[in-house]
Amino acid sequence: MIKIGIVGGTGYTGVELLRILAQHPQAQLVAITSRKQAGMAVADMFPSLRGSVSLAYSDPASTDLGRCDAVFFATPNAVAMAQAAALLDSGARVIDLSADFRIRDVAEWEQWYGTRHAAPGLIAQAVYGLPEVNRACIRTARLVANPGCYPTAVQLGLLPLVEAGVVDLDHLIADAKSGVSGAGRKAETDFLFSEASDNFKAYSVNGHRHWPEIRQGLGDLAGRPVGLTFVPHLVPMIRGIHATLYARITHGAGSDASFFQKLYQDRYAAEPFVDVLPAGSHPDTRSVRAANLCRIAVHRPQGGDTLVVLSVIDNLVKGAAGQAVQNMNIMFGLPETLGLAQLPVVP
Amino acid sequence: MIKIGIVGGTGYTGVELLRILAQHPQAQLVAITSRKQAGMAVADMFPSLRGSVSLAYSDPASTDLGRCDAVFFATPNAVAMAQAAALLDSGARVIDLSADFRIRDVAEWEQWYGTRHAAPGLIAQAVYGLPEVNRACIRTARLVANPGCYPTAVQLGLLPLVEAGVVDLDHLIADAKSGVSGAGRKAETDFLFSEASDNFKAYSVNGHRHWPEIRQGLGDLAGRPVGLTFVPHLVPMIRGIHATLYARITHGAGSDASFFQKLYQDRYAAEPFVDVLPAGSHPDTRSVRAANLCRIAVHRPQGGDTLVVLSVIDNLVKGAAGQAVQNMNIMFGLPETLGLAQLPVVP
Amino acid sequence: MIKIGIVGGTGYTGVELLRILAQHPQAQLVAITSRKQAGMAVADMFPSLRGSVSLAYSDPASTDLGRCDAVFFATPNAVAMAQAAALLDSGARVIDLSADFRIRDVAEWEQWYGTRHAAPGLIAQAVYGLPEVNRACIRTARLVANPGCYPTAVQLGLLPLVEAGVVDLDHLIADAKSGVSGAGRKAETDFLFSEASDNFKAYSVNGHRHWPEIRQGLGDLAGRPVGLTFVPHLVPMIRGIHATLYARITHGAGSDASFFQKLYQDRYAAEPFVDVLPAGSHPDTRSVRAANLCRIAVHRPQGGDTLVVLSVIDNLVKGAAGQAVQNMNIMFGLPETLGLAQLPVVP
Amino acid sequence: MIKIGIVGGTGYTGVELLRILAQHPQAQLVAITSRKQAGMAVADMFPSLRGSVSLAYSDPASTDLGRCDAVFFATPNAVAMAQAAALLDSGARVIDLSADFRIRDVAEWEQWYGTRHAAPGLIAQAVYGLPEVNRACIRTARLVANPGCYPTAVQLGLLPLVEAGVVDLDHLIADAKSGVSGAGRKAETDFLFSEASDNFKAYSVNGHRHWPEIRQGLGDLAGRPVGLTFVPHLVPMIRGIHATLYARITHGAGSDASFFQKLYQDRYAAEPFVDVLPAGSHPDTRSVRAANLCRIAVHRPQGGDTLVVLSVIDNLVKGAAGQAVQNMNIMFGLPETLGLAQLPVVP
Repeated sequence: MIKIGIVGGTGYTGVELLRILAQHPQAQLVAITSRKQAGMAVADMFPSLRGSVSLAYSDPASTDLGRCDAVFFATPNAVAMAQAAALLDSGARVIDLSADFRIRDVAEWEQWYGTRHAAPGLIAQAVYGLPEVNRACIRTARLVANPGCYPTAVQLGLLPLVEAGVVDLDHLIADAKSGVSGAGRKAETDFLFSEASDNFKAYSVNGHRHWPEIRQGLGDLAGRPVGLTFVPHLVPMIRGIHATLYARITHGAGSDASFFQKLYQDRYAAEPFVDVLPAGSHPDTRSVRAANLCRIAVHRPQGGDTLVVLSVIDNLVKGAAGQAVQNMNIMFGLPETLGLAQLPVVP
Repeated sequence: MIKIGIVGGTGYTGVELLRILAQHPQAQLVAITSRKQAGMAVADMFPSLRGSVSLAYSDPASTDLGRCDAVFFATPNAVAMAQAAALLDSGARVIDLSADFRIRDVAEWEQWYGTRHAAPGLIAQAVYGLPEVNRACIRTARLVANPGCYPTAVQLGLLPLVEAGVVDLDHLIADAKSGVSGAGRKAETDFLFSEASDNFKAYSVNGHRHWPEIRQGLGDLAGRPVGLTFVPHLVPMIRGIHATLYARITHGAGSDASFFQKLYQDRYAAEPFVDVLPAGSHPDTRSVRAANLCRIAVHRPQGGDTLVVLSVIDNLVKGAAGQAVQNMNIMFGLPETLGLAQLPVVP
Repeated sequence: MIKIGIVGGTGYTGVELLRILAQHPQAQLVAITSRKQAGMAVADMFPSLRGSVSLAYSDPASTDLGRCDAVFFATPNAVAMAQAAALLDSGARVIDLSADFRIRDVAEWEQWYGTRHAAPGLIAQAVYGLPEVNRACIRTARLVANPGCYPTAVQLGLLPLVEAGVVDLDHLIADAKSGVSGAGRKAETDFLFSEASDNFKAYSVNGHRHWPEIRQGLGDLAGRPVGLTFVPHLVPMIRGIHATLYARITHGAGSDASFFQKLYQDRYAAEPFVDVLPAGSHPDTRSVRAANLCRIAVHRPQGGDTLVVLSVIDNLVKGAAGQAVQNMNIMFGLPETLGLAQLPVVP
Repeated sequence: MIKIGIVGGTGYTGVELLRILAQHPQAQLVAITSRKQAGMAVADMFPSLRGSVSLAYSDPASTDLGRCDAVFFATPNAVAMAQAAALLDSGARVIDLSADFRIRDVAEWEQWYGTRHAAPGLIAQAVYGLPEVNRACIRTARLVANPGCYPTAVQLGLLPLVEAGVVDLDHLIADAKSGVSGAGRKAETDFLFSEASDNFKAYSVNGHRHWPEIRQGLGDLAGRPVGLTFVPHLVPMIRGIHATLYARITHGAGSDASFFQKLYQDRYAAEPFVDVLPAGSHPDTRSVRAANLCRIAVHRPQGGDTLVVLSVIDNLVKGAAGQAVQNMNIMFGLPETLGLAQLPVVP
């Protein structure tokens, strides 16, 4: 059994992590900390966990997470960076679901996150936890930076094209749509039911924090900087991300739609959590709801020179807590799918 | 392994049954029939099951379900009654999720369901599959009539009061609210997104088919007929039933709210799938979403003589497919909770 | 033209009041105050009003609302009571959409609202603004207490029965369901999209502030105290209240369902904003969405002794801003329907 | 008063047309036909219209629409083309909300709509009813082809760029999202609440009927064929279209973001129903809900060479019934905004 601690855990990635870990056969939850909720039973905050999670939130100051094998940070940004070093020194391995260790360029991180980085020295040893790209490094990682939700959907959607070098890398477009849980469990007017339901809008068109993260990831694959226009939108649904990706084909005239279909199928043939749909498909977000899956479809409308790739995930699972547990499985030598086999909930 | 056949299975109780059985360690799906969809892969109709269910729908005419240990009917009403006898003769045990065998009084059934009953002789041997009431009989049943969704929520909510004889049995009120999946996957205008969302209404106030079913169940418990006003409502959510139950206290003046709280806690102390919440609680439907659970809270507002009981289930799980599998577990001597331990999905 | 001031106006009743008044042919908006938003253009906060409302929020301290003919309070509770006296002294007439002047018994008000009343002397001269009951008094009122949303739906639904004295007044039941906008535009976790959507729950079963308001209103009609069990629920929709009302018939055996149908039709025959539906109907909330209407249907299920009345309003219109403008029309001698004829928005 | 007939009118564009016309000071509804619903009162089908619309549906065979001044077709495709000629001969002017007369190239129309065109000779005299482009021709038109919903949002969003010739016309991208009412009021499984809610997906990526319509419109403005990738998506909301438009800047290096902002503001300065938002804005669909408005924002993320234009409409108003009435106003010499001044409904 892996002894597990969670820092934070009062938000949506937290409760999802609890749901998954409580059903994981090798996970033993030993502590969950929250400054604000210290003393409160987890099941009092989340009645859905009544009977399954008996822990109470404990005060971070009096909780020794160093005795854990793995510590997950399900905290706002800028918390993990202050605590990771001590935990790593204690021998725990750290999986950070926040953004603290995702960007290698410290200056860029500081610009987008608006604060000084508290542990720039740790960034270099953090492994970006996208198993479909970095599985080997994750295996031995002591500190994993779990990818953002949009970055997971967009990178998995574009990586076969970028690796194969068959599209114009200077003008990629990611038109991404997210359910409201992506905004977290913060009490903000914009995310009230009466504001967000029966409504649709784009936001942060001029710059979203996931833009540098995606560009870094795709740039690594390409071996050169890529140009990306990234427009996130808010969808009146709870869970789910749908990325609609546009790329101009640069590959020779001989390639038809089936070339790209095969490219995706081959790239992901061995991946347990990426499902390339048959040609002509339109994945819907509910087909991955509550499951650790990314489903992808590739289109070449009217045989033109613009590819359209559709990529869907559940932002809280493959886009957060599920991927974090997938990383844990890899880090601890467990079967990668252990505890992650729940089927999507439909309808 | 229990060899399982499903008749129907293109609707919501069907896909939910598939989701649960595909994850059940002792269930082996051997056939699923559908006249309309014969030949179609189940995963093509429900992409959420891609990779988990490899069966295709088969033609009922050419499918021998008699070789199954258990056959589930996830069909419209009036299908199971025509096929059950032959299956039972073949040695299969039958769990009917439709209403064909729920009402003992044939004339009453025929009145409410508007057709002649095709197998009146089987009704007497059918066991009403509410484990919290009929567990012993279910164990040996060969034909189980799986309860309706509203009847499950209402009966579990009222039965401690009815058994204890502490309320006016002539004037029970059940104000019940259901998510739209309760109406099934039929293409009807009323249940279009653009009709049902951002909307709320009562329906069938003058008579709903679940009214005689509930009255029969409560009457059995009371040992006399009960009076019940039952008003169902349609809620713009996918899953969930919330029953708000009103009963006038007839018990002596000495009983306070804690008397009723204890009554419920004692009655359900050994039940794995009924959770009595602490006094003062308000269960929400999502606290049981996608899980085989009923959560109940008991209130006595302002210490008056009217009790208010709140009872929630997921209509597709404890109100249909989950309860059906619970019945299967009981019938086949398996642990009652086997394959039914998935936690509710929140948010 | 009636010169109008609004105090508050950054919440949902505020923006609805603005929408209605901006289209009212006799209303001239001269000032809207908000301490927090002083200086901000109203249309910047509510882009739906771009091009129609050119006012900016002004600082209450520097805004002379005394020059207005009518001042609406669209504020949290306990604001109007502190400012009404001065405005009345200046000659303005006041319509308070909050609860400050709704309860005549000061002690009861203080108990439910948890604070001392700042203007107990004004309560006696406040007229409860339910035109279907108090039209004559509203005409000359200088201070109108606009009813709450639940109280409007419940009182209009029950008043023909209470006035006629044909039901058991000691055991009325109001099972009421409200859209989320009823909770206001406050940033609270409970009302986030990811909490309130795809969910349903009761709340405040042991006591809601609208309970004493309804009891006072019905008690006035009955000429004696009434007994009422009131259970509010939260529906995942933006606008709308649906009250399902239960009353035991005490009237002689001769009365059939048509007696009650006629009772309602006669009572509301002359009311421009109350629509009694044909027998057997089920009003849905969207049939009054964005309109100043209450639609009602009366049922007597299975000819039993329990009546079921269904009453729907838009909580922001007939339950708040629309009723406030209806009161204004009455107070200023305008046609009661002036500016209130917009049709419901469907779908 | 303009005597008005409606053909169809049992779907969403029909009920919206009724809502708008019933409040239009110069419109007199004289007949509404429906084969299926002949004899039924309109208000029985749409209770929201009780008290406002007293017409019943009449049988098309026995209804003389030729006596009308204006006849609206709110029918499925391929109905208006069979009836328009006779009505025009009778002297009525025709506004077709379906697609029958939108595409000038008959062969292309027949390919996309899968049937022979019944009145190819009328196509040439039909005027495409986008007032912001064709106002002068609409004035004298006898047959107006009211634009599709997506085409309205996309063309209004792109036309300033296309007219100015400042972007790459071969690679325009329109990522469009529509509320479910865009699919009409047909009983189809895909649009059930339990399918479409809490879900998001693209559809018809390989070809949607609005693609040739948009290309024709933009091609007319450009004076040459344009290249367009058009991907529609289904959003779990009732009303609203949000088009996110991507265009590569070809204009000289001197142009900054404010150049484009000014381009849009100048182009639409005199348009009553197009609102260009301040730089940096993100229009949400609810800011135009139930109103005849298009709101647009122009972005140039990170100062790159890709423009992002956000364009929102209510698909049933500016995308259908509202625009049809706008066209009627123009055709009959009325003020263009008459009867179309209702403010958006928020929340």
